[in-house]
Amino acid sequence: MRIAQVAPLTEAVPPKLYGGTERVVAYLSDALVELGHEVTLFASGDSETKARLEPIWPSALRLDPAVRDHIAPLFMLMEVMARRSHEFDVIHSHLDYFGYPLLTRLGVPSVTTLHGRLDMPELHQLYEIYNEVPVVSISDVQREPLPHANYIATIHHGLPKNLLTPGGGSGGYLAFLGRISPEKAPDAAIRIAAMAGMKLQIAAKVDRADRRYFEEKIEPLLSQPHVEFIGEIGEHQKSEFLGNAAALLFPIAWREPFGLVMIEAMACGTPVIAFRNGSVPEVLENGLTGFIADSELAAAKAATQIGQLDRRSIRAEFERRFTSHRMAQDYVDLYQTLASGNGAASSLPMPGEIRQGQTSALRA
Amino acid sequence: MRIAQVAPLTEAVPPKLYGGTERVVAYLSDALVELGHEVTLFASGDSETKARLEPIWPSALRLDPAVRDHIAPLFMLMEVMARRSHEFDVIHSHLDYFGYPLLTRLGVPSVTTLHGRLDMPELHQLYEIYNEVPVVSISDVQREPLPHANYIATIHHGLPKNLLTPGGGSGGYLAFLGRISPEKAPDAAIRIAAMAGMKLQIAAKVDRADRRYFEEKIEPLLSQPHVEFIGEIGEHQKSEFLGNAAALLFPIAWREPFGLVMIEAMACGTPVIAFRNGSVPEVLENGLTGFIADSELAAAKAATQIGQLDRRSIRAEFERRFTSHRMAQDYVDLYQTLASGNGAASSLPMPGEIRQGQTSALRA
Repeated sequence: MRIAQVAPLTEAVPPKLYGGTERVVAYLSDALVELGHEVTLFASGDSETKARLEPIWPSALRLDPAVRDHIAPLFMLMEVMARRSHEFDVIHSHLDYFGYPLLTRLGVPSVTTLHGRLDMPELHQLYEIYNEVPVVSISDVQREPLPHANYIATIHHGLPKNLLTPGGGSGGYLAFLGRISPEKAPDAAIRIAAMAGMKLQIAAKVDRADRRYFEEKIEPLLSQPHVEFIGEIGEHQKSEFLGNAAALLFPIAWREPFGLVMIEAMACGTPVIAFRNGSVPEVLENGLTGFIADSELAAAKAATQIGQLDRRSIRAEFERRFTSHRMAQDYVDLYQTLASGNGAASSLPMPGEIRQGQTSALRA
Repeated sequence: MRIAQVAPLTEAVPPKLYGGTERVVAYLSDALVELGHEVTLFASGDSETKARLEPIWPSALRLDPAVRDHIAPLFMLMEVMARRSHEFDVIHSHLDYFGYPLLTRLGVPSVTTLHGRLDMPELHQLYEIYNEVPVVSISDVQREPLPHANYIATIHHGLPKNLLTPGGGSGGYLAFLGRISPEKAPDAAIRIAAMAGMKLQIAAKVDRADRRYFEEKIEPLLSQPHVEFIGEIGEHQKSEFLGNAAALLFPIAWREPFGLVMIEAMACGTPVIAFRNGSVPEVLENGLTGFIADSELAAAKAATQIGQLDRRSIRAEFERRFTSHRMAQDYVDLYQTLASGNGAASSLPMPGEIRQGQTSALRA
């Protein structure tokens, strides 16, 4: 198929540093090309992709100090995409609602993946107006605060099969990977490791917005002998960091819409000990790829029993459910359903029509 | 005509406090109704207007602490406007480029007034894409950083004729009115008044963004005996404050796109002593409605000679050039030109066609 991928311009595709959405768009675009499709990626000019790159802005907005109006480039992006829309069989937007004014009027099948949290009060009213725009959720639980959007599928994220390599967990430590922020609860990870009598390695960035939280709440805890704070690590260091860990701790304190780090751990064969929150019960299989805990004590107990889980089975489960090829194939199935209509928004499947079956393999 | 006015949602129309754009939209909408037109105003629900109000969001976004996503309501606004576009002969947007994706595709004549500064580097590229969208500048000088937009007219702002009442300048002081910020240069006003040997009254708000500038640069100057700092004043206090002043000081230090305060002073019969910058030479007539100075010394000298100017002539010039009825009539002329086409964007007048003549009265 001739597929347009429309990425945000905040980060490059894939991002040079942090940035979940652009990373997923990168993996999806490459996997679609590998499946034989003709993919055009609308993204910042410093992106690197197997698709045909349509550079809308020279470099990612977040790291370009000259950019003062961060919205104007998005309007350029949408307009360029709209003027070329006739070249595509389907347009896949990752811009949240920014694409809707045009996507609903182009006469070309389109779909938008919602990558973020959906509990902003304004979205409730916006989606009363845009209640027919077809959207994809990245987990079922993500939909809860915004039930009346027109979800046509849940499609879980995926990683390139060989992006990360399995390890044996020989370091014996518990791992915390991501951002230092209250919703990621690094303090809970520190307490869980202490209760389990295990070392904890923390590889995490500290955003400016979380600097005060870090200094007041987390930094005082880092002097404990069982804790080692490594700072931010790059993609190329993840296999070693996760592969050598006995388990990843994911004591998440908010409704995480997906949680890429869980499947990164699985790709390394590393089990995940997570709190029952957000997408966790959809991503993890309790007793197979990790343990889902309801308290810090339960998480600590799970850590001491982590040897029960088979790292090769975890990696196998990653390959079955969370590769970018599986993700891309799910999207292709969806694109084909969308393109088999006449392309007008009003002919798009109503909620439920695709929801059942289309991606049932995900939750079977 | 059936006219849609599309206002930002940041402030009410008119604003409860500061907010130039929404204030102009309020004056324009009321004046269009008074001229006999059928006006629908898309704005926040706490707006007060003679037009038919289409409330898009219950209250102005800036003062609503519950609002977390300030962009989503704008997308609601645009979509609601688009779905009702067939009801109007012309759509007048005050949303900068936010309206373009839809306005260029509705098949209804439309125009956008650019209210702000146009020197953001991103706008240059955006307007290469949107180089046919008809826009109105609020002064000729405003266009300079963005010369390739499709300006179809300059229309200066106007105030309701009886909003402010003329005064005799009996207070004898110089007045500074507006915001404390480097580009408004209150420090220059203080120095000019000192050189002229006159009192200066400063009625100005201090935004949070300018708090540090105020504390470091301006507050230390306020203890001088010729300076009185009043703080922010409301609309109802302006007639007294400006009407009793010998002159308004407007020592502007940036390319001011219009400068409402200059015509507020003129409405009170109060002359304006301004620096030659931005819109000043378009709004003021040197030796009639004020003096245009090239230095602080020249401004001080002008202040001592302010008695040469006739306050009744200044008020008469306000009534001739800067009432909201004049502004509304200029827009009606433009709407009629736009509506006399077939309504498609491609049939809109090209730059220059309307520029000459249509609003020539303004600059004759």
